[in-house]
Amino acid sequence: MSINQLTKPISVFRNKNLFIGGNDTVELVNKYGTPLYVIDELTLREVCKEYKNSFKSLSQVRLTYASKALSTLATSKIIADEGFGFDVVSAGELKTLYHAGIDMSTVTFNGNNKTESEIEYALDLGIGRFSVDNFNEAKLLNDIALKKNCIAKILLRVTPGIECHTHEYIMTGQIDSKFGFDLSQLESAVSLILSDYNNLSIMGLHAHIGSQIFEKQCYKDELLILTRELKFLNNKFNLSLNELNIGGGLGVKYTDSDEPPSISEFADVISETLDSLECKDLILYIEPGRSLVSTAGVTLYRIGSSKTVPQCRKYIAIDGGMADNPRPSMYKAKYIAEICNDTTGREDELVTIAGRFCESGDILIENINLPSPMSGDILCVYNTGAYNYSMASNYNKVAKPAMVLVNNSQSDIIVNRESLDDLISLERIPDRLKK
Amino acid sequence: MSINQLTKPISVFRNKNLFIGGNDTVELVNKYGTPLYVIDELTLREVCKEYKNSFKSLSQVRLTYASKALSTLATSKIIADEGFGFDVVSAGELKTLYHAGIDMSTVTFNGNNKTESEIEYALDLGIGRFSVDNFNEAKLLNDIALKKNCIAKILLRVTPGIECHTHEYIMTGQIDSKFGFDLSQLESAVSLILSDYNNLSIMGLHAHIGSQIFEKQCYKDELLILTRELKFLNNKFNLSLNELNIGGGLGVKYTDSDEPPSISEFADVISETLDSLECKDLILYIEPGRSLVSTAGVTLYRIGSSKTVPQCRKYIAIDGGMADNPRPSMYKAKYIAEICNDTTGREDELVTIAGRFCESGDILIENINLPSPMSGDILCVYNTGAYNYSMASNYNKVAKPAMVLVNNSQSDIIVNRESLDDLISLERIPDRLKK
Repeated sequence: MSINQLTKPISVFRNKNLFIGGNDTVELVNKYGTPLYVIDELTLREVCKEYKNSFKSLSQVRLTYASKALSTLATSKIIADEGFGFDVVSAGELKTLYHAGIDMSTVTFNGNNKTESEIEYALDLGIGRFSVDNFNEAKLLNDIALKKNCIAKILLRVTPGIECHTHEYIMTGQIDSKFGFDLSQLESAVSLILSDYNNLSIMGLHAHIGSQIFEKQCYKDELLILTRELKFLNNKFNLSLNELNIGGGLGVKYTDSDEPPSISEFADVISETLDSLECKDLILYIEPGRSLVSTAGVTLYRIGSSKTVPQCRKYIAIDGGMADNPRPSMYKAKYIAEICNDTTGREDELVTIAGRFCESGDILIENINLPSPMSGDILCVYNTGAYNYSMASNYNKVAKPAMVLVNNSQSDIIVNRESLDDLISLERIPDRLKK
Repeated sequence: MSINQLTKPISVFRNKNLFIGGNDTVELVNKYGTPLYVIDELTLREVCKEYKNSFKSLSQVRLTYASKALSTLATSKIIADEGFGFDVVSAGELKTLYHAGIDMSTVTFNGNNKTESEIEYALDLGIGRFSVDNFNEAKLLNDIALKKNCIAKILLRVTPGIECHTHEYIMTGQIDSKFGFDLSQLESAVSLILSDYNNLSIMGLHAHIGSQIFEKQCYKDELLILTRELKFLNNKFNLSLNELNIGGGLGVKYTDSDEPPSISEFADVISETLDSLECKDLILYIEPGRSLVSTAGVTLYRIGSSKTVPQCRKYIAIDGGMADNPRPSMYKAKYIAEICNDTTGREDELVTIAGRFCESGDILIENINLPSPMSGDILCVYNTGAYNYSMASNYNKVAKPAMVLVNNSQSDIIVNRESLDDLISLERIPDRLKK
């Protein structure tokens, strides 16, 4: 089974209590507190290896992890050690990679509105590629590269007229998207860059067609369009552009109703399409984000209060919620969970898992069967490796959770828990208010 | 005009550039950078005064600001100076008030799942009231108060069978809410507390019926239910409970289509209802959050890239978005905005304001007429005082904005801008990964 088709990390097993990475989850929370993000190193490394194996028939593939799904020093180090490059979207993600000791030539900088200082920082670090999103950015990047007397190697981000999310998949000549050049603008963009922007070196094209994708066909259509455009530009301007970044977006299995294709099926459709197009010599970038880190991550919470609404439902409240995992509030995302401590002898009960945050919408899981959850139980929510830490807020002025990396019965803190002092460390009362 | 019925802070004027609190906004961003949260001290103080004046006919009213809308040291100090108490929902909000030098006896602790350590902290600080949300919490609070040999003064949070958001208003015998005791559970809760929980002292009832409320009638219905329940409990158990906390929720005017009642209309409906019920002797808590801080706040952004989708729309990208203001993504919230720098001579253009974050949904304002926005312009988005800083994340590993307080041509930093170093300060690479 492909790791993106599993709902749980591969190291998970039960021996009365739930274990992950060889660690008893109850001992983990006793040691590190709750809520606690946990990353299973084995799952993370195995999914990296699965990606590499699945794409090995393509000699010139460059796997670049989309940092926005989860950006930490330790996970970046692991992903780089497994042979991945990186896709970043901010100076903060660049800083993280730099401090993790990542080879910056493997990094591509994406985004629809990179700031001047971010571009300067990226050039100073010597990153590999800029994905240039629009006309303003082409000019800005060229100006800065000129000032620094360097050449920026670029891909041109385009909107290929395909948008794909889960089962929905639209293909039109034009997409109403804030990202990238419309296909109708591509020729004039290349023409402008070739004639006026001497500090930019065009290497190829970039597109990204969505997230949590279950549909393989859209990648085939994307490749058809991108290779067609690349050939057109090469002919028109007598170029030999040979790089295509097809983005990421492969889905994962949050619940049993999610049915993403396997990583090898994803690789096969790309490989077969390139074969049929006779484009095996292309340098292909793939940017997995969610599918690389989601399954490896779980969040452990402690159950506190409960409330029974007569003839309606029973709420079970945990000590986290929408601030450490905004996906249910923001995207109506679904999750599965189980109780970590021994629940032998308890009967199943239909409950709703409510967060601790002061907002009616802070419901983590609506209607789940769990063995009679009670105050003090530890709850494990699965598939929280992506877009949990990275989207976490301090809503209600609640500190962000710690994160531990587990493997071979070892556990190591990779993100310290925020303290109450951290929460006010940047705040000041002006002298004039102190009287 | 009531301040919650204004779309802009009261100190705003134009003299070519946009001014706020006597400060040229263009100078503000040159000094402090973008994105920049700005709080107009005059508007904040005036809305506090308006609340106090509007409720002055009720001798025993206690105005307690709902910190979750915006919790900082400086704004807490100002709101306390204007005579408000506070409603908090976490240890972090308590810590903020403590460090701002707030009288902790004016503070009420709300929330559906306060943790043991938070309750201990609140008791140690000597806060005024706990709003006890459920049976688990009553027991937990009593246990901790017993251990500390103190008495916790409590209100019992109930779900009064009313829920009111903007124009929607439902009234049933029962609400499917994670918060509070169902009315059918109230008698047994009081009975249990009186018989078994000697370290709890019941003072009255608490309810909260929604947010961004435009409908006065729901407050009247809420008061009818709460006073009925209070009388029932006093008769049944021979008590003299005389405190009612009716929560907050009064709406503000984000755009011209929002029509909240004024603060004095809100006060009048409450005062008249209490008159008609002959309950003038009640101690009444009102918890305004959004309506106290929203209008005073604006966010200044710098415009960067733009993209025209032919025959569709023009995107204008700013250097912030869903991480500093998640409300459009999370609630489809609407905002108005204007360009800060002099735009004399420019013609209006219909544009869509896109954020900088790597997500298609990061659109701050869809379709707004602005005078031909261009790269380098400063954009002021209004009514961002509530639920912006408090809900901000580091999505895409982008640092949180700074916040300045402006008044009488002065400006003072009240929240420092996060640095790139701050973004990784809690992260660690375990030694075993370093090899």
